[in-house]
Amino acid sequence: MKFKEACSVLLTDLYELTMIAGYYDHGRQDDFAVFEYFFRALPKNYGYAIFAGLESLLDDLEQLHFTADEIEYLRSLGIFKESLLKELSHFKFHGDLWAFPEGSLIFPAEPILRVQGPLAQVQLIETLVLNHLNYPTLVASKAARVVYAAQGDPVWEFGLRRAQGPNGGLCGARAAVIGGCAGTSNVMAGYLYGAEVSGTQAHSWIMSYPSELQAFRDYSETFPDSSLFLVDTYDTLESGVPHAIEVFKEMRARGWQGRAAIRLDSGDLARLSKEAYRMLIEAGFDDPVIVGSSELDEYLISELKHQGAKINVWGVGTKLITCWDEPALGGIYKLKAIEQDQKLVAKMKVSSNPLKTTDPGVQIPVRFYSPDGVPIGDVLFLEHETIPNRDVLSHDRHQLDRTITIPASASHQMLHQLMMKDGKRTHLEESLDVLQSRAREQIAVLPTEMQRLVNPEIYPVGLSTATAKAKREAIRRYSSHMSVIRHS
Amino acid sequence: MKFKEACSVLLTDLYELTMIAGYYDHGRQDDFAVFEYFFRALPKNYGYAIFAGLESLLDDLEQLHFTADEIEYLRSLGIFKESLLKELSHFKFHGDLWAFPEGSLIFPAEPILRVQGPLAQVQLIETLVLNHLNYPTLVASKAARVVYAAQGDPVWEFGLRRAQGPNGGLCGARAAVIGGCAGTSNVMAGYLYGAEVSGTQAHSWIMSYPSELQAFRDYSETFPDSSLFLVDTYDTLESGVPHAIEVFKEMRARGWQGRAAIRLDSGDLARLSKEAYRMLIEAGFDDPVIVGSSELDEYLISELKHQGAKINVWGVGTKLITCWDEPALGGIYKLKAIEQDQKLVAKMKVSSNPLKTTDPGVQIPVRFYSPDGVPIGDVLFLEHETIPNRDVLSHDRHQLDRTITIPASASHQMLHQLMMKDGKRTHLEESLDVLQSRAREQIAVLPTEMQRLVNPEIYPVGLSTATAKAKREAIRRYSSHMSVIRHS
Repeated sequence: MKFKEACSVLLTDLYELTMIAGYYDHGRQDDFAVFEYFFRALPKNYGYAIFAGLESLLDDLEQLHFTADEIEYLRSLGIFKESLLKELSHFKFHGDLWAFPEGSLIFPAEPILRVQGPLAQVQLIETLVLNHLNYPTLVASKAARVVYAAQGDPVWEFGLRRAQGPNGGLCGARAAVIGGCAGTSNVMAGYLYGAEVSGTQAHSWIMSYPSELQAFRDYSETFPDSSLFLVDTYDTLESGVPHAIEVFKEMRARGWQGRAAIRLDSGDLARLSKEAYRMLIEAGFDDPVIVGSSELDEYLISELKHQGAKINVWGVGTKLITCWDEPALGGIYKLKAIEQDQKLVAKMKVSSNPLKTTDPGVQIPVRFYSPDGVPIGDVLFLEHETIPNRDVLSHDRHQLDRTITIPASASHQMLHQLMMKDGKRTHLEESLDVLQSRAREQIAVLPTEMQRLVNPEIYPVGLSTATAKAKREAIRRYSSHMSVIRHS
Repeated sequence: MKFKEACSVLLTDLYELTMIAGYYDHGRQDDFAVFEYFFRALPKNYGYAIFAGLESLLDDLEQLHFTADEIEYLRSLGIFKESLLKELSHFKFHGDLWAFPEGSLIFPAEPILRVQGPLAQVQLIETLVLNHLNYPTLVASKAARVVYAAQGDPVWEFGLRRAQGPNGGLCGARAAVIGGCAGTSNVMAGYLYGAEVSGTQAHSWIMSYPSELQAFRDYSETFPDSSLFLVDTYDTLESGVPHAIEVFKEMRARGWQGRAAIRLDSGDLARLSKEAYRMLIEAGFDDPVIVGSSELDEYLISELKHQGAKINVWGVGTKLITCWDEPALGGIYKLKAIEQDQKLVAKMKVSSNPLKTTDPGVQIPVRFYSPDGVPIGDVLFLEHETIPNRDVLSHDRHQLDRTITIPASASHQMLHQLMMKDGKRTHLEESLDVLQSRAREQIAVLPTEMQRLVNPEIYPVGLSTATAKAKREAIRRYSSHMSVIRHS
């Protein structure tokens, strides 16, 4: 039996429930509706995002229900009719859901997830969708950047203590591994998701002893195969590293043949790591493992690498788990089409801010690849459009007349998969390894200019000619409608 | 029956378990030890923090245990002895715990929480303590700032969709209410903690109708007493507000006597709110409620207030729940004293960075008040020191010779309360109202210069003469010790 986050429909914004009350009240609860999850922009300096959080969302959607106590609580608010409470008491989710597979490369403006079904149902899950997807996607993306900066060195996620509660730490650790981290300090993430876990001592272990030397000795006795010592409790170069070397020598005398390993958790990691490396080599410990931690992120790791720091394993805590420089992904869940008078009517938001103007109706995201397998652009087609076997025009989402041509030689991939049908999963749970491999493989073929940590090139996500036409017409219709209002 | 976060000792960093393995291996598991939780610095521009998260920590500590499956998982890691796994399988927490009451004003460097008991036990809970306290304390503090900026207007927490998973949103909502928010959109926080909940419609409600007018009308039919309309879906001033006014008029014709209410969720909130206010007043709807939301934080609310925005209810989401400008509190949990050879030995960290040098051993925080009830400084006394009935010198924590004098006329308050004895709670759960009132009352008497949102004055937390003496001696001892190492 595994630990599961208790799941409840009450973990939602109240307005989802008041809207549902209104839909029921007007007999609209079963109107067929389509919602999409997407985000308008990447965090600053990000060239892509990695999709994460789908697994726990599907899990929650399958189990979603109101308990009797929860219904009683809703009754106590005094705003809901008995008829609605009765409906909710046997609520079960019956929507269909398409999405990118977890671990996929995703980009702004494309539908990451499409949910369709009865209006009340697909509305109710809005907050749940956003809560499950926004944060993990952000962390997986940040982790991928940190891993890129580490240039092949393993990166470990160490942020549980600075996360937003137990679940923040847990889903953050899982997403970090999807994004490429070798593992985490979070034991629960190991237990639940099979993530690799790692850890040795804190400063308190060292300080609990009268001497640092004794602290290292005792640790090596308990873990004779694991020889990583935290060397910065008193003075890294004057005390920590010499004491570690002393104990490595004792261990070697007892027949140990492992690599010497130390962890630096404070001070200047470039200078200290180079000096510690030199001391370890001089003492006869070749190829030492030097773990660096303390306020690391992709930018600092890049700089330390650039300065020749001798760190070869990176522990990244606070700045990864909180996504410090931009701690939220602005993913949103928007109504894209709804049945009105037995017709499915496409909806879009028209805003004076072009970034906030959405694309009309339901779109199918398709990725095109050059003959050597490099992704060259995603194009949003209308739902029933056929992907042509010739050059495809991809229209800029804002300047609709600006196009790029995707040559007929490009292959394409439909990006959405059916994940849930009538509220039942149609997609089996995938292991963390599979998700991590998917992300790694997709990032590996992305042009390096889009992987750059600062000011990366923008990956093109455009509209098919039919989608662009629909958008142009919708904006015109809207504008004339608005001018009627303006002059009335 | 209430929803409870499943609680497990596995929600920890692996090194807590490897250290415990070492303590058991060397027969040190029951050595008496004292740990403290504190933070070194406030986030930028913060003049104080509000302590939150204690309730769920106490709850978890009382229930802490390893399940058989969890022990099996630890066994599978292949690094722990059977004797240790057996000990863990009947682990129960038996420590004593003192803390500030939740909702208290707290400041850097003072011990917010003290835990003492058997070394292995008080070590094991480190990650749990940090995970439970760091984030809620940060959010409660941020919320207090946002509430200050709103100058008496109610502030609602709307951030669930951008939080770190379900629990991030839940403990964030609770902490936001402790910090002064009127309530939250998070229904689960209402159900579990009795927080006020609020919400009406999203844009999807409006867009699900062929016309905005019909959307407002239908909503007012379902909720005849709740007349808050989201007016920015199409065009706030040309469409939303005129349609809202039309429906308010219809409602009034049916006998409704409430206040007209609208919500603005985009565009320029200053201009739109002033214009909407004027339109509502002209239409005969006095004293309208105008809710503003969209990327708000304490700084933007201050600016909008300064520009005469006519918003009188504030919905604050992303930037509060993530504490956007500094999304983690650097709270730490450090060994302060440990039994060695039957003697309790004080421990401190000496660093070349004075900010990172801790104070020696166990301290008792005491707050002094002027005769009119204004807090004038906190002083850290040694554990068995008596608070004198005369002038008290408070020594600067870094420049130990710099002192301020707290006059004999000042009254004082011991800040710690015993919260847990031998692993059993000695402190009953307090309601959210009580915690919110405590925070409000303590902030109200804090000098306004320490409440300022930018560059506030620093509240003095100093050392008693005895603590300062102990610190001076410890630094000297350490320095001579280090120089021995340096020259050996």
